[in-house]
Amino acid sequence: MLKPNRHYQDLTENYLFSEIARRVAAFKEANPAARVISMGIGDVTLPLCPAVTDAMGKAVAEMGDPATFQGYPPAVGYDFLKSAIARYYAERGIPVTERDVFVSDGAKSDTGNITDLFDNDNVVLIPDPVYPVYLDSNVMLGRTVRLIDATEENGYLPLPDERTEGDIIYLCSPNNPTGAVYTREGLKAWVDFALKNGSVILFDAAYEAFVRDPALPRSIYEIEGARACAIEFCSFSKTAGFTGTRCGYTIVPAELEAGGMNLSRMWLRRQSTKYNGTAYIVQRGAAAVFSPEGHAQTRANLRYYLDNARLIMAFLDKKGIPYTGGECSPYIWLKCPDGCTSWEFFDRLLNTAAVVGTPGSGFGRNGEGRFRLTSFGSREGTLEALDRLDALL
Amino acid sequence: MLKPNRHYQDLTENYLFSEIARRVAAFKEANPAARVISMGIGDVTLPLCPAVTDAMGKAVAEMGDPATFQGYPPAVGYDFLKSAIARYYAERGIPVTERDVFVSDGAKSDTGNITDLFDNDNVVLIPDPVYPVYLDSNVMLGRTVRLIDATEENGYLPLPDERTEGDIIYLCSPNNPTGAVYTREGLKAWVDFALKNGSVILFDAAYEAFVRDPALPRSIYEIEGARACAIEFCSFSKTAGFTGTRCGYTIVPAELEAGGMNLSRMWLRRQSTKYNGTAYIVQRGAAAVFSPEGHAQTRANLRYYLDNARLIMAFLDKKGIPYTGGECSPYIWLKCPDGCTSWEFFDRLLNTAAVVGTPGSGFGRNGEGRFRLTSFGSREGTLEALDRLDALL
Repeated sequence: MLKPNRHYQDLTENYLFSEIARRVAAFKEANPAARVISMGIGDVTLPLCPAVTDAMGKAVAEMGDPATFQGYPPAVGYDFLKSAIARYYAERGIPVTERDVFVSDGAKSDTGNITDLFDNDNVVLIPDPVYPVYLDSNVMLGRTVRLIDATEENGYLPLPDERTEGDIIYLCSPNNPTGAVYTREGLKAWVDFALKNGSVILFDAAYEAFVRDPALPRSIYEIEGARACAIEFCSFSKTAGFTGTRCGYTIVPAELEAGGMNLSRMWLRRQSTKYNGTAYIVQRGAAAVFSPEGHAQTRANLRYYLDNARLIMAFLDKKGIPYTGGECSPYIWLKCPDGCTSWEFFDRLLNTAAVVGTPGSGFGRNGEGRFRLTSFGSREGTLEALDRLDALL
Repeated sequence: MLKPNRHYQDLTENYLFSEIARRVAAFKEANPAARVISMGIGDVTLPLCPAVTDAMGKAVAEMGDPATFQGYPPAVGYDFLKSAIARYYAERGIPVTERDVFVSDGAKSDTGNITDLFDNDNVVLIPDPVYPVYLDSNVMLGRTVRLIDATEENGYLPLPDERTEGDIIYLCSPNNPTGAVYTREGLKAWVDFALKNGSVILFDAAYEAFVRDPALPRSIYEIEGARACAIEFCSFSKTAGFTGTRCGYTIVPAELEAGGMNLSRMWLRRQSTKYNGTAYIVQRGAAAVFSPEGHAQTRANLRYYLDNARLIMAFLDKKGIPYTGGECSPYIWLKCPDGCTSWEFFDRLLNTAAVVGTPGSGFGRNGEGRFRLTSFGSREGTLEALDRLDALL
């Protein structure tokens, strides 16, 4: 008799986005003339840049020609992409080489699947509020999860102290949903903790390209000792608008070990067995992001989003509403005015300004009374939303 | 202190393909003038058909245009592809609807990741010889694996008997590596067994498109009762040459349950949490396989491979060498002549005819003394290889 994985019963249904959709639909039905503006989405809106579409168009043609057709890809990436990624680190003086790079279909898959490498008898430490995938992929395995508080007091950047326990530590910087970015000193505190306790840090760097301040780290490997305790997840989704094109990469340092087992070889074995490589066409598109044209074009798109963020920040500053993020992140995490709960503020924005954001309580207990706005909209939509909020707040 | 997943230590390194590569390299170095012909690869060689490259070229252009740009895809497939897949079943009168279809990046990922849905305390039943992924993805979880003998006596199509035990049963038909195809009666015996014992059948139908004989089943859902006990894995890799383009689909019937839990909802949750959907461009290419042009063009490619297979079969018939497969499969599984072991026969073909095949012993204990040839080469290469073997055998 087949026994299902009963840990799936311990998952809490996250109704956040379906509940948002339900309330927006009800509002639209009651107000058919209203033009709703979304500042809630975490998805990009600018199209792929020409360098990327040119490279993918060429790759499509290659796939139709017997002389250049590509069959099974290497399980963890073509050399042309792995070497481009390694150069992206080397140019910044960060100690990552081609051997450490594992290409995949995205950071979400990798942050979920990396759990395969660890025994279920580990303590998992996750900040609250949090991107839900970290929590859910561990609950599915029945693991012990401890939450560490990310709050206004610590700037949504918790640090370890003498009571902290965690064998597997998830960190996301720039953070989703709070937009907060760890300093080098902050990350060093975590690396030191991990080295002392034999923990592994799973570092989600999906938003690293938004970091404009050279004083702030974009990779955990900027911190001494991180190669001995950290795995880093990166993505082309936000850097280059690949949310619908699906490509990411994970850095597992070649020498990284746990309990005498080499985690790099284990990840290679995991991906060779349960993954079959990323599409040739997609990898050609990803490699074009590192070309001079691709770099310039994708950076222009990032500036567009960051300029939206600056408009939102200037508005919140004017209104005296506290927030984190926006400076080096597409996310702005604000404190709901007038002591509103997250959902009260959501309804207020929707019903009086036809503006949609994301209630912070959907990201964890410390998100109550907070609200996430994103800079991924159009310039016009962002400006009009702020005009409407100006009248309201 | 982080504890790694020690079950990875129980994996046996499969040196099959690296050992083949090593011996071929040594042969080439000793015989620089020899033209080696591979009949060992399981990868396709014909390029993507024009219907597919046209659709993907159009999708690339859409991704570069703000009016048609696509962000995050649905986690388990766009409706345009799911409905095309559902029609592909409906046209054959097979009870599969759009709700049952889960699009992914390939059958290898899905056959590996589906293990997430089951408790580790299940007995896994796997035929020997076997595609190594089934075994390895369960060994990684420390599960109890029983092998069931696929032998010359049962035509490499084992059936359950009163001693058979298995909560999770892997079946692959047409089979890799043996090319054997279950009859409806054979599959019915397994479905009846699964229904009686509360087991689930994981049915790998990656090679279904090679089945030409209408008397043979191409889907397990052709068998009554299968919707209550089976999950089916399909792929565009061999059907449409997508080995380097990466798209597949898994059928989990909407009502399929185990221990009171709905496996369809569990798979949706698994894929929504640990996967983020298949690239828009790739799904547009996959959908084009179901267009009239795409269907005609991909079928022409399948005929090309099956014609290669017929040439190999005619040759083996002439030589009186017993084999399975070839008729409805790209694989031909032959009995090594003169009582050779698999590797002895490999060396004989390589050293005297410069022809490369795959030793059957690499697929399991019942593969010893057997050898796999594939029909994925070019017509010219296949003909020349058979000429050389004619002189040798």
